[in-house]
Amino acid sequence: MIKVGLLGAGRIATVHATTISNHPLSNLAAVADINNTAALKIADRYGCEVKEIEEILRDQSINAVLIATSTNTHSDLLVRATAAGKAVLCEKPVDLDLARARECQSQIEKTGIPVMIGFNRRFDPNFSALQNALVGGEIGKPELLSITSFDPAPPPIEYVKSSGGLFKDMMIHDFDMANFIMGEIPKTISAFGTSIINPDIKEAGDIDTALVTMQYADGKLAIIKNSRRASYGYDQRLELLGSEGLLQAQNMSENTIVKSTENGVLGAKPTYFFLERYMTAFIAEWGAFMNVVTENKTIPVTMDDGVMALAMAEAAAKSLSNGALVHLSEI
Amino acid sequence: MIKVGLLGAGRIATVHATTISNHPLSNLAAVADINNTAALKIADRYGCEVKEIEEILRDQSINAVLIATSTNTHSDLLVRATAAGKAVLCEKPVDLDLARARECQSQIEKTGIPVMIGFNRRFDPNFSALQNALVGGEIGKPELLSITSFDPAPPPIEYVKSSGGLFKDMMIHDFDMANFIMGEIPKTISAFGTSIINPDIKEAGDIDTALVTMQYADGKLAIIKNSRRASYGYDQRLELLGSEGLLQAQNMSENTIVKSTENGVLGAKPTYFFLERYMTAFIAEWGAFMNVVTENKTIPVTMDDGVMALAMAEAAAKSLSNGALVHLSEI
Amino acid sequence: MIKVGLLGAGRIATVHATTISNHPLSNLAAVADINNTAALKIADRYGCEVKEIEEILRDQSINAVLIATSTNTHSDLLVRATAAGKAVLCEKPVDLDLARARECQSQIEKTGIPVMIGFNRRFDPNFSALQNALVGGEIGKPELLSITSFDPAPPPIEYVKSSGGLFKDMMIHDFDMANFIMGEIPKTISAFGTSIINPDIKEAGDIDTALVTMQYADGKLAIIKNSRRASYGYDQRLELLGSEGLLQAQNMSENTIVKSTENGVLGAKPTYFFLERYMTAFIAEWGAFMNVVTENKTIPVTMDDGVMALAMAEAAAKSLSNGALVHLSEI
Amino acid sequence: MIKVGLLGAGRIATVHATTISNHPLSNLAAVADINNTAALKIADRYGCEVKEIEEILRDQSINAVLIATSTNTHSDLLVRATAAGKAVLCEKPVDLDLARARECQSQIEKTGIPVMIGFNRRFDPNFSALQNALVGGEIGKPELLSITSFDPAPPPIEYVKSSGGLFKDMMIHDFDMANFIMGEIPKTISAFGTSIINPDIKEAGDIDTALVTMQYADGKLAIIKNSRRASYGYDQRLELLGSEGLLQAQNMSENTIVKSTENGVLGAKPTYFFLERYMTAFIAEWGAFMNVVTENKTIPVTMDDGVMALAMAEAAAKSLSNGALVHLSEI
Repeated sequence: MIKVGLLGAGRIATVHATTISNHPLSNLAAVADINNTAALKIADRYGCEVKEIEEILRDQSINAVLIATSTNTHSDLLVRATAAGKAVLCEKPVDLDLARARECQSQIEKTGIPVMIGFNRRFDPNFSALQNALVGGEIGKPELLSITSFDPAPPPIEYVKSSGGLFKDMMIHDFDMANFIMGEIPKTISAFGTSIINPDIKEAGDIDTALVTMQYADGKLAIIKNSRRASYGYDQRLELLGSEGLLQAQNMSENTIVKSTENGVLGAKPTYFFLERYMTAFIAEWGAFMNVVTENKTIPVTMDDGVMALAMAEAAAKSLSNGALVHLSEI
Repeated sequence: MIKVGLLGAGRIATVHATTISNHPLSNLAAVADINNTAALKIADRYGCEVKEIEEILRDQSINAVLIATSTNTHSDLLVRATAAGKAVLCEKPVDLDLARARECQSQIEKTGIPVMIGFNRRFDPNFSALQNALVGGEIGKPELLSITSFDPAPPPIEYVKSSGGLFKDMMIHDFDMANFIMGEIPKTISAFGTSIINPDIKEAGDIDTALVTMQYADGKLAIIKNSRRASYGYDQRLELLGSEGLLQAQNMSENTIVKSTENGVLGAKPTYFFLERYMTAFIAEWGAFMNVVTENKTIPVTMDDGVMALAMAEAAAKSLSNGALVHLSEI
Repeated sequence: MIKVGLLGAGRIATVHATTISNHPLSNLAAVADINNTAALKIADRYGCEVKEIEEILRDQSINAVLIATSTNTHSDLLVRATAAGKAVLCEKPVDLDLARARECQSQIEKTGIPVMIGFNRRFDPNFSALQNALVGGEIGKPELLSITSFDPAPPPIEYVKSSGGLFKDMMIHDFDMANFIMGEIPKTISAFGTSIINPDIKEAGDIDTALVTMQYADGKLAIIKNSRRASYGYDQRLELLGSEGLLQAQNMSENTIVKSTENGVLGAKPTYFFLERYMTAFIAEWGAFMNVVTENKTIPVTMDDGVMALAMAEAAAKSLSNGALVHLSEI
Repeated sequence: MIKVGLLGAGRIATVHATTISNHPLSNLAAVADINNTAALKIADRYGCEVKEIEEILRDQSINAVLIATSTNTHSDLLVRATAAGKAVLCEKPVDLDLARARECQSQIEKTGIPVMIGFNRRFDPNFSALQNALVGGEIGKPELLSITSFDPAPPPIEYVKSSGGLFKDMMIHDFDMANFIMGEIPKTISAFGTSIINPDIKEAGDIDTALVTMQYADGKLAIIKNSRRASYGYDQRLELLGSEGLLQAQNMSENTIVKSTENGVLGAKPTYFFLERYMTAFIAEWGAFMNVVTENKTIPVTMDDGVMALAMAEAAAKSLSNGALVHLSEI
């Protein structure tokens, strides 16, 4: 049984607490958070202890930690946790500062300790089935990838201000998804964006609607569409044209009810919001991490994946400010 | 070029007038109707003459007639038209009286003149694709057929009174469809019905909602569902379970627009009403009749098909009044 | 915290063991089964004890039992468990013998102990959303209900022989579903069935394909379609025509992937099989039972519901053997 | 009755011949083509005369002409036909040379004769319903438009060589569609393209797969995706995110049949190819032109629309060769 220390006790940490507890091979041993009330709540619900981070890292009986603290602490905790010999699953993004993320990467690589980055969407059964079908040759060679990723509503403006911007906060998932599906990184990135949902977002120096076009070494293309607002809910779709067909991962729906009336044929909205939409993915992600820890399986989302998605976000930000195409190799 | 006489100038006759005119092998030569204004309107639109029925039947230059007059005249016109040597496409039902229909059948059979019955739905591209897939072995042997056939709204009560009842007026199409799909006639018929839409329908001695269950010699089953009212429009679906799969013919939609809002995901209503839904079928039906007339092709919907559907409607009516299962051989 | 004794350790009992353990208000205290290996496996996985049924019933610290033993023991265990003061969730069917079920019902009613019957499908989010929409008046008054319920493949012939027959083993779920949706019981039941999938099923005196037509006091109608084999998987759909629209609960799919190739547009198969399809329902069912036990909420599926579904199955069997319509009041 | 001269007798001209003949207000009077056999075939089928273009333009009884000759003749024929006082419906594109198209535009504007450009997709019932829903405020303000437009297979390489390139030959429809939906022209255009389907296309100096990103004055965005090959058929979809919802125009299907087997749930392919997919649009387009000619209605697709789509294609070509964003005002 793998004893796990949970660093952080916020919304996403609570999801992980459930997942860790329900998995047959893991046990939630301790939780740490600067917000003691939040930590106590998790401890109470899952029957574990509240500890200081340092205590958890020193505890020899704890085999692994899950880092779900605020982004600015990730690099530091990654270095400390691997130094303490704990296998790590770290929430995305690795850092908002690419140089710091790269420095962190080089330090943890020396330890040889397994580190997995929490790009949970790779474990979504729909997206992984799509990737699997592609790898299985079901639509020939990939030619044109489209990723649609819209949030239901913009986050609070305070969140926007400290988020690192749409590319690092939101589209970073889609950059990683593109890498996951295409199996390679793009050569060039061009970003187009605007702030048309809320003027406060513009004032905060961010955008709320974006298109990013990427081209790969062999010419194939990808487009990512992001919006901070889709009034109908959380829109998460993939579409890949290949030489022998098209693969689409469509939205999941809240239910399968269809109501036909004189107003038309009405179906349910997409599954709302990421906790619901990606719950299966969070469970599968933890299972994959357990396979890494207990069976020495290949790490499915590496530190390198985490750093690369960050570099792509930085390239997009640069392209948006320049109004020009950016070669990923420049970043 | 086949010169065609159109008997009748009502709604359905007007559809046929267009179809006859647009077909490369046929020409609308004359139209007859007791309503002279209606006949003149068609004559004006399609550049043909208004004549008496008798004139049309006597006209040696006219090769074929389409009977689209009121139901009670069908038998008589079928006999007269075939006696006059005209190939006939006759609208369904053949008659409301089964004995009369059988008498008519025996008379026209002697003439050897081709007679085709207007069960247009057999020519719907969806239903014919389903039948084709079944015959092609795509789902193995048929086991359980479901036919859903709902009208958007009940007809005027005056129409109901002279319609011959739901089974002969509305479900007759579905009886023929079952015969078309299953490729054989059922052994037993059980009918369940009610009048819950409009009390006037009950008062008129008719029902507005019905379930008919049919069983075939080898045990396989079919169910037909009819309602005179579907507030969302014209609902025309088939579903066939076979030993190796399921075939469904779903509704056609007014358009392919999907609107997602906070209220849900809204698609268009089914194609409204039979003229729109089955326009392609009417065109294909006429094409099939032209193949019979000009190339001596096998008649795709025979007089026997028309009489059989009527017998099934009569069996259903008997079952409903008896509250018991009826063997089709009794009818 | 409600301490629960689990009676039975088979496939369905294992599902319940997980559900009981994961629920915040319940605790799996003990498990009993004549198959000790199976009981030990559950005990090991969920950290509970293996006990004899009698021990569990005598254990004052155990508040509730879940009966998931073989059907022929249900009545007896219901009586003993309620006599011992345990709240009970009992798997369907209550019994295969209607008289015994009614006797059981009268005995447990005297105790005043809450008993809930495991018609889990009422808790499926799709079916409950449909029922909710109907109750909310979204399609007016119900007129015509269709239930499609096909298993992926017939059970082993040994299972068939002891199952009580298709109506009591399989369609009993659909009878309860009809009662749940319509909010009332039918007046008449007519059954049509055949054995066309496997001759061994016929030899065992059972059918594998069935249509049951039900009519209600006010005339409205329902049809249930059952097949023991749908090669494409587990087909579980509802469709209700109302005076102002149509509600459909469609199948859930294994994923949302759509693959378009020169062969057509291919989507995933329905969720396979009942454990996957109804997992959410099992969880919600247990939550509802916990609400009954801890908050004295109304029992959502009563002993009366269990007995009624059994009576309907018996009526269907009688109709099938008679070839005649059966009044439910006769049963 | 409007007498129409048809200039051209190729594939698209044949479609128009049918449409003109079937419309109640128009009559196909004459057809002209350098290929006399093709012209005779149309003349024979629709009962009109074969004439020289000059004869048609001089014929005072002919009110309107439809230009469906090869692209390089369009400008010249537009000038001559309007000079001769004929109302004109001209197939797209106006010209492959923007300067020539502008010169042509200025010449015909002086005549005051109505000229309509054949962007038939504006008349597709799905796309026009989408535009109508947007104008009706059903999804608030437009924010992000996506156009997917894939051909089933690349044209012959000889066609590619004289086509003017993907942007002017294929994407020109999508540029016009964007203008139609958005109701304004973009400020900037960025093009990304590649030739990965067929090396011959690359050798011919063209691309076969392209992404074009457009930004509007207020910041909103549009993306057009083109591919010369979709093995599953003709893929023609629109998707528009607005401030209050999403509108999608999905593909039409060859039929509504769904086949469920152990391989999955298989639907029909998209309607194949543009003649089938846009037949309704061609009919509605002609109806709209008849409204212009007979009722002096506003021209729904003007010469200006034709020239603007061409300018956008030129901007895209420039962006592709520069690797930089192009301001439409530069073109």
